[in-house]
Amino acid sequence: MDFRSDNTAGAHPAILEALARANRGTASAYGEDPVSARLAQRFNELFEREVAVFPVATGTAANALSLALYTPPWGAVYCHPHAHIQVSECGAPEAFSAGAKLVSVQAGPLYSLGKLDADAVARAIHREGAVHAVQPAAVSISQPSEVGTLYTPAETAQLAELARRHGMVLHVDGARFANALVALAASPAELTWKAGVDVLSFGGTKNGCLAAEAVVLFQPERARELAFRRKRAGHLLSKQRFVAAQLEAYLEDELWLVNARHANAMAHALADGFSALGVRVLGPVATNQVFAELSPCASATLRASGFQFYDWPTLGPEARRFVTAFDSRKADVDALLEELAGLRAAH
Amino acid sequence: MDFRSDNTAGAHPAILEALARANRGTASAYGEDPVSARLAQRFNELFEREVAVFPVATGTAANALSLALYTPPWGAVYCHPHAHIQVSECGAPEAFSAGAKLVSVQAGPLYSLGKLDADAVARAIHREGAVHAVQPAAVSISQPSEVGTLYTPAETAQLAELARRHGMVLHVDGARFANALVALAASPAELTWKAGVDVLSFGGTKNGCLAAEAVVLFQPERARELAFRRKRAGHLLSKQRFVAAQLEAYLEDELWLVNARHANAMAHALADGFSALGVRVLGPVATNQVFAELSPCASATLRASGFQFYDWPTLGPEARRFVTAFDSRKADVDALLEELAGLRAAH
Amino acid sequence: MDFRSDNTAGAHPAILEALARANRGTASAYGEDPVSARLAQRFNELFEREVAVFPVATGTAANALSLALYTPPWGAVYCHPHAHIQVSECGAPEAFSAGAKLVSVQAGPLYSLGKLDADAVARAIHREGAVHAVQPAAVSISQPSEVGTLYTPAETAQLAELARRHGMVLHVDGARFANALVALAASPAELTWKAGVDVLSFGGTKNGCLAAEAVVLFQPERARELAFRRKRAGHLLSKQRFVAAQLEAYLEDELWLVNARHANAMAHALADGFSALGVRVLGPVATNQVFAELSPCASATLRASGFQFYDWPTLGPEARRFVTAFDSRKADVDALLEELAGLRAAH
Amino acid sequence: MDFRSDNTAGAHPAILEALARANRGTASAYGEDPVSARLAQRFNELFEREVAVFPVATGTAANALSLALYTPPWGAVYCHPHAHIQVSECGAPEAFSAGAKLVSVQAGPLYSLGKLDADAVARAIHREGAVHAVQPAAVSISQPSEVGTLYTPAETAQLAELARRHGMVLHVDGARFANALVALAASPAELTWKAGVDVLSFGGTKNGCLAAEAVVLFQPERARELAFRRKRAGHLLSKQRFVAAQLEAYLEDELWLVNARHANAMAHALADGFSALGVRVLGPVATNQVFAELSPCASATLRASGFQFYDWPTLGPEARRFVTAFDSRKADVDALLEELAGLRAAH
Repeated sequence: MDFRSDNTAGAHPAILEALARANRGTASAYGEDPVSARLAQRFNELFEREVAVFPVATGTAANALSLALYTPPWGAVYCHPHAHIQVSECGAPEAFSAGAKLVSVQAGPLYSLGKLDADAVARAIHREGAVHAVQPAAVSISQPSEVGTLYTPAETAQLAELARRHGMVLHVDGARFANALVALAASPAELTWKAGVDVLSFGGTKNGCLAAEAVVLFQPERARELAFRRKRAGHLLSKQRFVAAQLEAYLEDELWLVNARHANAMAHALADGFSALGVRVLGPVATNQVFAELSPCASATLRASGFQFYDWPTLGPEARRFVTAFDSRKADVDALLEELAGLRAAH
Repeated sequence: MDFRSDNTAGAHPAILEALARANRGTASAYGEDPVSARLAQRFNELFEREVAVFPVATGTAANALSLALYTPPWGAVYCHPHAHIQVSECGAPEAFSAGAKLVSVQAGPLYSLGKLDADAVARAIHREGAVHAVQPAAVSISQPSEVGTLYTPAETAQLAELARRHGMVLHVDGARFANALVALAASPAELTWKAGVDVLSFGGTKNGCLAAEAVVLFQPERARELAFRRKRAGHLLSKQRFVAAQLEAYLEDELWLVNARHANAMAHALADGFSALGVRVLGPVATNQVFAELSPCASATLRASGFQFYDWPTLGPEARRFVTAFDSRKADVDALLEELAGLRAAH
Repeated sequence: MDFRSDNTAGAHPAILEALARANRGTASAYGEDPVSARLAQRFNELFEREVAVFPVATGTAANALSLALYTPPWGAVYCHPHAHIQVSECGAPEAFSAGAKLVSVQAGPLYSLGKLDADAVARAIHREGAVHAVQPAAVSISQPSEVGTLYTPAETAQLAELARRHGMVLHVDGARFANALVALAASPAELTWKAGVDVLSFGGTKNGCLAAEAVVLFQPERARELAFRRKRAGHLLSKQRFVAAQLEAYLEDELWLVNARHANAMAHALADGFSALGVRVLGPVATNQVFAELSPCASATLRASGFQFYDWPTLGPEARRFVTAFDSRKADVDALLEELAGLRAAH
Repeated sequence: MDFRSDNTAGAHPAILEALARANRGTASAYGEDPVSARLAQRFNELFEREVAVFPVATGTAANALSLALYTPPWGAVYCHPHAHIQVSECGAPEAFSAGAKLVSVQAGPLYSLGKLDADAVARAIHREGAVHAVQPAAVSISQPSEVGTLYTPAETAQLAELARRHGMVLHVDGARFANALVALAASPAELTWKAGVDVLSFGGTKNGCLAAEAVVLFQPERARELAFRRKRAGHLLSKQRFVAAQLEAYLEDELWLVNARHANAMAHALADGFSALGVRVLGPVATNQVFAELSPCASATLRASGFQFYDWPTLGPEARRFVTAFDSRKADVDALLEELAGLRAAH
């Protein structure tokens, strides 16, 4: 009964089966194998255009490689102050870019929704063209955001337009891209390049893979450089086929969408249950994360009964985060709500 | 019939089974899981002392993290000119260390055996203490070397002593550490810290894992820094238990030694067969690599029959490399030798 | 009639004379000369203890070297959002530290005075000890601040104490250190190591030198590392005596204090004149910078008459900055005020 | 009587006078001043085409900025093993380029003359296009070389052609460019862009400046990037006019050529004197360096009489280096030769 994060889940059985399939026979190392070749083709179809895809084992690698490709050492990356790249990657984007600056944009009407606002970004740009200041290089958003909210294609396009005006690219951290996709009922193309996105960190791990993410370049002419960057960062596996195989299985038979729909549905069930019980849900629930207010006493009781979840102090002293995953069980959601109902009744 | 490299092999079935076992239930992410904890203990036993172990997915990451831990940006790493870190990692050690210099030591009686010579390293040290020159920081050797030869514990100790005299550490790239271990019939401790090694890149992938290597620190007090370095490089997996699980299974029931013994035996069979056929074998065969001279015609014929192997021009215009792996089949070795015998007979 | 900045001024004649004196005869290059040796001794006396001093040609070099010495790539440097290191050095601290993060602390009661508040820094520290986040490494303040305000020794000590508690060092950007010194009527020791400062960027250029700053280490045992860092950054001059000679002359006969007192006095005269004319002066005037509100019309008229100064939009739409220097003439201050008085009268 | 290096000399009086002239009045900081503007124009004339010129205070900065502009982190710079960038800059090129690799080319018929050979460079290129290896980015030569020899325009052009074929640029470390120029009786254009040079480190310090070098870009469209790189490295001085003023005076009335001719002539006088005395001169003397064999006894006697020079073990156990400068006195050369003659007579 683990609601801590979608990365405490294991891998979907179909992913493990794909590994076993990929294990038959020898194959050229370092991504020169047939599975990797098929995957490249598969991503072209998925995004309805030519893309360049670079599978890697971690989201941090995908984000840092994406940003480093487009951000010179004297570049600025504009992001939300709670962005994963800003607070949870131990400075990886700075490392991969040889010292670029991540500028937190702490303003605008979307700020409290965990989202970046194009006008606020515009105001944060500082001394453009002057040699004294780092220069606009990239805007980076998380889709869904770190609090599970979503950018509409229109909002994304606004950011892309702003980026274009200042010679920047638009990067999307899609660690939970599938959850956004099914929630917005949009196509991968609509959420990305059709809305002006230049580079996407395509997540698989949180939604059923074992360790599989990918950098997706919508400017495939930049692929050569990224190939050297990936290798040099130690993120080209020798038996690279095993990362490609995960992503191939992830996309097969819509596994990724099925998984994401399930996780989102579990989050909605949880949120609805909370509301019905009078528990305050913080912010809209759009994907697979629920933030809710629970007293220390209620939290402690739930935890004593085996429910796991995190405190989330940035949203308030009694805020707690519940994340659902592809394998969250409805029975666990119900059990949690029942326990909570009992608690309420007891008072 | 693939003799190109031990990384064209897949994973040993026991490794895949371990992944399936590790997949049961949820687990704390980022290495805070029980498998990782068990593995840490297992490495202590294996090396007969306290060590700090950091599983990662690639050998390049293991090498570059190891070297960066001990080499300041103005440091020099002394290595063989053919060392993997020097010629096959696209500058990863330089990247991770923020620009250290890898100094090729191209001299000494061991040079032609692909090994580094302590006296030659001593002569290569340049302007020690002077602000104008990069300063001695590390000696890095591959055990076995890139041409499959071995350092005896005494040779290793000599390098370690030299390193100590100049304030350096001794790093071992053990991408094929198991192959060295069984060939030398020594214990892991004897080949490493007892001979003065400070840090080891412990390889698993080439010998039956899917993607599992580890940095092993014999100065566990340096673990805190390496933890940040690993995370920042994007090499801490969220579902880290799946790397730990591979290594756990790799060590279980001596799987790693069994695999390495098999690979080495296949190489010896191949080399013996070559010699019996009058094919010149280049250098001693100590582990799982065989270098041999084959005419372009013989090579082409073998390849046409489905045998795969690399040309190795650094050892001569007709030099070819054959690498055996944990799953190389004796039948394939025999078939290759038979084909070659046929060829010889035809002439 | 140039009030744009104290770096539009030239060098004091005594500095040029010192260059001529240092030019006699040959001298060992790279700081092994007698002037550099004398200067090292002079700084020990000045700070009433053993320090290590590294003269360099730019303040950006001094700041970036200071911070890089103490901040690992995964370190955080806490600073005011308007700090020179954050907004005016094009990412030099990130470059020299191989990608550390500069964290803007935008809160606390001192914030609006351009100063960093110890409690606000404490609140900004994020996930200390967790591998996911950059770790506290340094607090950096400017003395005087970018708006000319001052830290009392007590305020400095509070920051130093906080730094100590979190394993950080306290760095002072003293580009205008002399201006602070004379304003606070404190000794160099009192403003620095006695208040807990670990490393100081000691400025000379803005106050009469041609190009001379220095890193002053109050932990002289760190000197060896800084020597390599300076060389590697290209900031060890071959004819290094010419930087040392400037600083020697700068300290001789209290030239630095005389210069700073003059500049501060001119700023006070200007500010007093503004107030007398009913021009709003923004913030306290403590050193050699005056911020005042002038209408676009008044600004344009002054500029047309040859007065130079900058608009300063971060303090308001009509904010202007006037900086005085060691060679600012009282006559120019008077002329400016007279012109302004005439303007007021005309309305 | 100092023959250690041309950087133990001071500055030419005309350079100090230029500083005094530049010191009149205020001027825009950071290179926006009239002297810097005039200098840019002057370099266009000097090189008979549009160039972009970036004055800096050290040769290490000029070299490292030049190379970093053209070498990605995964790039290789091919150079002579004794190149200043390889052995005397403490890894600055690696630092500025975020970890590129400097590849020593230790072969070819020109090797023993301290020069790089185009064919040898071609042979050193390793796995071009393969993701595993650093990729050709730059060829860097010193003109004159570290042992004072010269590249003819034809030799330079051969290297440039090779560079072009592999997508590299050709960089010239011209720390002693003037000495080469007068020795070859060629124009600046003929020695650089007309022979295919892309970027030049133009030296002033060793030949009479106080601290003035410049990066000269023959692809001025790359100027924007270099501006950020220079600032970020702390190599844009606030009172930048003082570097520009040195270079302006250096070029005025052919001061640089007069100085270089004198230094070269003194070296020839010394070498001729050595030869006349039967002292073996090592290698050709083309510019302002003389390498000669002197016994320990002769060396010690000369030093006891006040003559300063370096031992140069890379050229042999009794090799010594004598460097002349713009202000070397004929009387000192004569005195040295006389002393030596006396010594010989005594034997």
